[in-house]
Amino acid sequence: MTETSQLQSVLDRVDADFDASVQRLFALLRIKSISADAAFAEDCKAAAAHLAADIATLGFTTEVRPTGGHPAVVARGNGNTGDRPHALFYGHYDVQPVDPLNLWHRPPFEPAIADHADGRKIIVARGAQDDKGQLSTFIEACRAWKSVAGALPIDLTIVIEGEEEVGSKNFVAFLEQHKRDLAADYALVCDTGMWDRDTPAITTSLRGLVYEEVIIKAADRDLHSGIYGGGAQNPIRVLTRILGGLHDDNGHITIPGFYDGVKDVPPEVLEQWKKLNLTAESFLKPIGLSIPAGETDRLLIEQISSRPTCDINGIVGGYTGEGSKTVIPAHASAKVSFRLVDGQDPKKIRDAFRAYVTARLPKDCKAEFLDHSNAPAIALDWGMKPLAAAKRALTDEWGKEALLVGSGASIPIVADFKRILDVDTLLVGFGLDDDNIHSPNEKYDVKSFHKGIRSWVRILAALAAAPK
Amino acid sequence: MTETSQLQSVLDRVDADFDASVQRLFALLRIKSISADAAFAEDCKAAAAHLAADIATLGFTTEVRPTGGHPAVVARGNGNTGDRPHALFYGHYDVQPVDPLNLWHRPPFEPAIADHADGRKIIVARGAQDDKGQLSTFIEACRAWKSVAGALPIDLTIVIEGEEEVGSKNFVAFLEQHKRDLAADYALVCDTGMWDRDTPAITTSLRGLVYEEVIIKAADRDLHSGIYGGGAQNPIRVLTRILGGLHDDNGHITIPGFYDGVKDVPPEVLEQWKKLNLTAESFLKPIGLSIPAGETDRLLIEQISSRPTCDINGIVGGYTGEGSKTVIPAHASAKVSFRLVDGQDPKKIRDAFRAYVTARLPKDCKAEFLDHSNAPAIALDWGMKPLAAAKRALTDEWGKEALLVGSGASIPIVADFKRILDVDTLLVGFGLDDDNIHSPNEKYDVKSFHKGIRSWVRILAALAAAPK
Repeated sequence: MTETSQLQSVLDRVDADFDASVQRLFALLRIKSISADAAFAEDCKAAAAHLAADIATLGFTTEVRPTGGHPAVVARGNGNTGDRPHALFYGHYDVQPVDPLNLWHRPPFEPAIADHADGRKIIVARGAQDDKGQLSTFIEACRAWKSVAGALPIDLTIVIEGEEEVGSKNFVAFLEQHKRDLAADYALVCDTGMWDRDTPAITTSLRGLVYEEVIIKAADRDLHSGIYGGGAQNPIRVLTRILGGLHDDNGHITIPGFYDGVKDVPPEVLEQWKKLNLTAESFLKPIGLSIPAGETDRLLIEQISSRPTCDINGIVGGYTGEGSKTVIPAHASAKVSFRLVDGQDPKKIRDAFRAYVTARLPKDCKAEFLDHSNAPAIALDWGMKPLAAAKRALTDEWGKEALLVGSGASIPIVADFKRILDVDTLLVGFGLDDDNIHSPNEKYDVKSFHKGIRSWVRILAALAAAPK
Repeated sequence: MTETSQLQSVLDRVDADFDASVQRLFALLRIKSISADAAFAEDCKAAAAHLAADIATLGFTTEVRPTGGHPAVVARGNGNTGDRPHALFYGHYDVQPVDPLNLWHRPPFEPAIADHADGRKIIVARGAQDDKGQLSTFIEACRAWKSVAGALPIDLTIVIEGEEEVGSKNFVAFLEQHKRDLAADYALVCDTGMWDRDTPAITTSLRGLVYEEVIIKAADRDLHSGIYGGGAQNPIRVLTRILGGLHDDNGHITIPGFYDGVKDVPPEVLEQWKKLNLTAESFLKPIGLSIPAGETDRLLIEQISSRPTCDINGIVGGYTGEGSKTVIPAHASAKVSFRLVDGQDPKKIRDAFRAYVTARLPKDCKAEFLDHSNAPAIALDWGMKPLAAAKRALTDEWGKEALLVGSGASIPIVADFKRILDVDTLLVGFGLDDDNIHSPNEKYDVKSFHKGIRSWVRILAALAAAPK
């Protein structure tokens, strides 16, 4: 067979086997591998075992290896020769919690194909996209290659962890420990999105993430506002006053030094971005909004990709049940996260936030802080070899030029791959903005899953042909 | 017997019977009559039936009467003559919810006598003070009079409701419906506090209460902050920004018109108040604070009694579980209450608050409001006849001049008594600031209970001797 006819045979195999691919994804989606909740630890183990057993059938030597937390799967291609380019594919089998459960239209761990309101076929379940659906596009592509050609076209190691949704802290130690076993020429990650439904994308920059929890404490007990109201500090009042000042009237973040090191996007890139015509109509209207909420002197595309942001992700204090209670609580807390861009030092940002809060505390109040994430932004090397190969392959599959884009999201592991394994990462994914990841009714378009598998089939072929 | 020796006999009877009085209070405290939670509706009925049966033994014709909510107890003295002063005693058998349960040192509905850290004997249970303990001081005083003298010294009607802690909305309708049965010369209420542990007090003004809930809505679903952060409105950010601006740097409330109609305390009263020497040391140190949090140009005693206040009693939005979730929620909400003083119109304050919030909403956000309370402040008539009699009786019992004080709390029913029954109310109570009412570990000093009963014995005698 010529290379071209072989590639076509593998693609045909993907199409012929697609119904079975969906059933295999469903089997994975039925496992309740919620990493944040200790009650699901056994489910996480089950997901790792399930993946190890499945990947073993594709010609890999697979192991479930312990970490400090949920286990990781490591799979090494039996046909690895050492002469070919060697890729390390990374994914995660863990998923986000499902609350609020009452907003789901069907049970989150009973996957099904459903009809989207606009007629698209979608796969609905927790993890349908993030990351079980996405990592399965790669595994199914390997299956098709193995089935048609008897082997994979490149050397391959697969690693799938179970703690991405809780910060990968144990996995970073695992990487250090197993770095020899995980050596490769570059990493492949399928945990990002398309530009839009028809336009594939490779993500070349990721925002960093500083995620802090702040707890304000005042009196040593809950108080009755009739007796103490007016005289005693109210930690919710203190918290709202401090958090309410984090943005000025123009949407700029007011923490001193926050923008230190932040660079403007080069004018030529900005010109390209303007042509993409990302509008409030296209981006915000589908979620019921109409006005960009970020810095008023920036384009919407800058607000969501190249500019650092601050969001309050959670807040709680006092009485939150039905009706009323005239309480002044002893404490109140909030979860505050910052998306960082290239040039910002996460430790400095964390310290600046803590100093900002502390400077605004009344003398009678204390603040405590918890560090949930502290990862820098990542700018990938646009000149990395596999990138051009992947761009061609994606363009071939989708019939539309693949875009190189900056993502607003954070995938901290990419920095760890560079630091620990000294590899660059190619970020290709098939998520859409309306996939409701981390929310009720998470979905993955059937088209994303199908053409995602086909895309990886082509990328693997292109990587085989490209220099290491 | 002379009147004096009869009074002494009744007081002796209180002392001799005190252990039994405590046991009767315990029986009432064991009933879980939480009015806010429908799961305890049967317990509320049981508390009403229990009180009706007990009060019947004191020479009253008692009935449990239905209301639109939990029932009320109405008891009419069998010895009422029509020639003597006729008092209407009011109390409530319902109690606040007990959450957070894990902060209680013992089960909230298993009352016990305990030792306070400073050596005081205390009765610990939900309702130990508010209002089961307080109303029991009056009922036990009646029991002692009945036991020694065979009859009460004045004409008396007792009414005990079950929805004070949820706003008494049904009880106000009940008052309208039964106003003939409840006719009296004045009302007595035991739901207020002492000045301090040794100094009795009669409350002559009460702050009003506007209690609002505000819900801010932005996108039509929860969003991932990696994708939308920076571009989409975050309702927690909007809420904290609005609530964080409710006070200025000097602790003044910034809502336009908020202080309209508020009068300064007369200079001579302020002079008296200054002599009381209410300090941060005495008032705030016991709860772990040191600096008055109210208007910086006002005395602490003004901040907590004669000045209107604003407190955020609860706030919630986004992810509030353990760890982190990078969500931008669809909505966030807060419970905000205002303590009002004489001269402020609660409806105007409510409307001004709503206008304040609405004016600060980004165009993409909506605000919804719930009205939980809307009651004016009350200034009682310092010249009302029974007041002087009660002041003498309290001074006799405690050996220290009873003070006439303004309370920071709200007892909206007092305004309804005036409006519907055309009676003034005498507010006498034996609560202390550290009773933890509405909080875990509610308590009532044994001394408050014991001398409270003795105080009412003396007040009943003094009212019998005073003009109607």
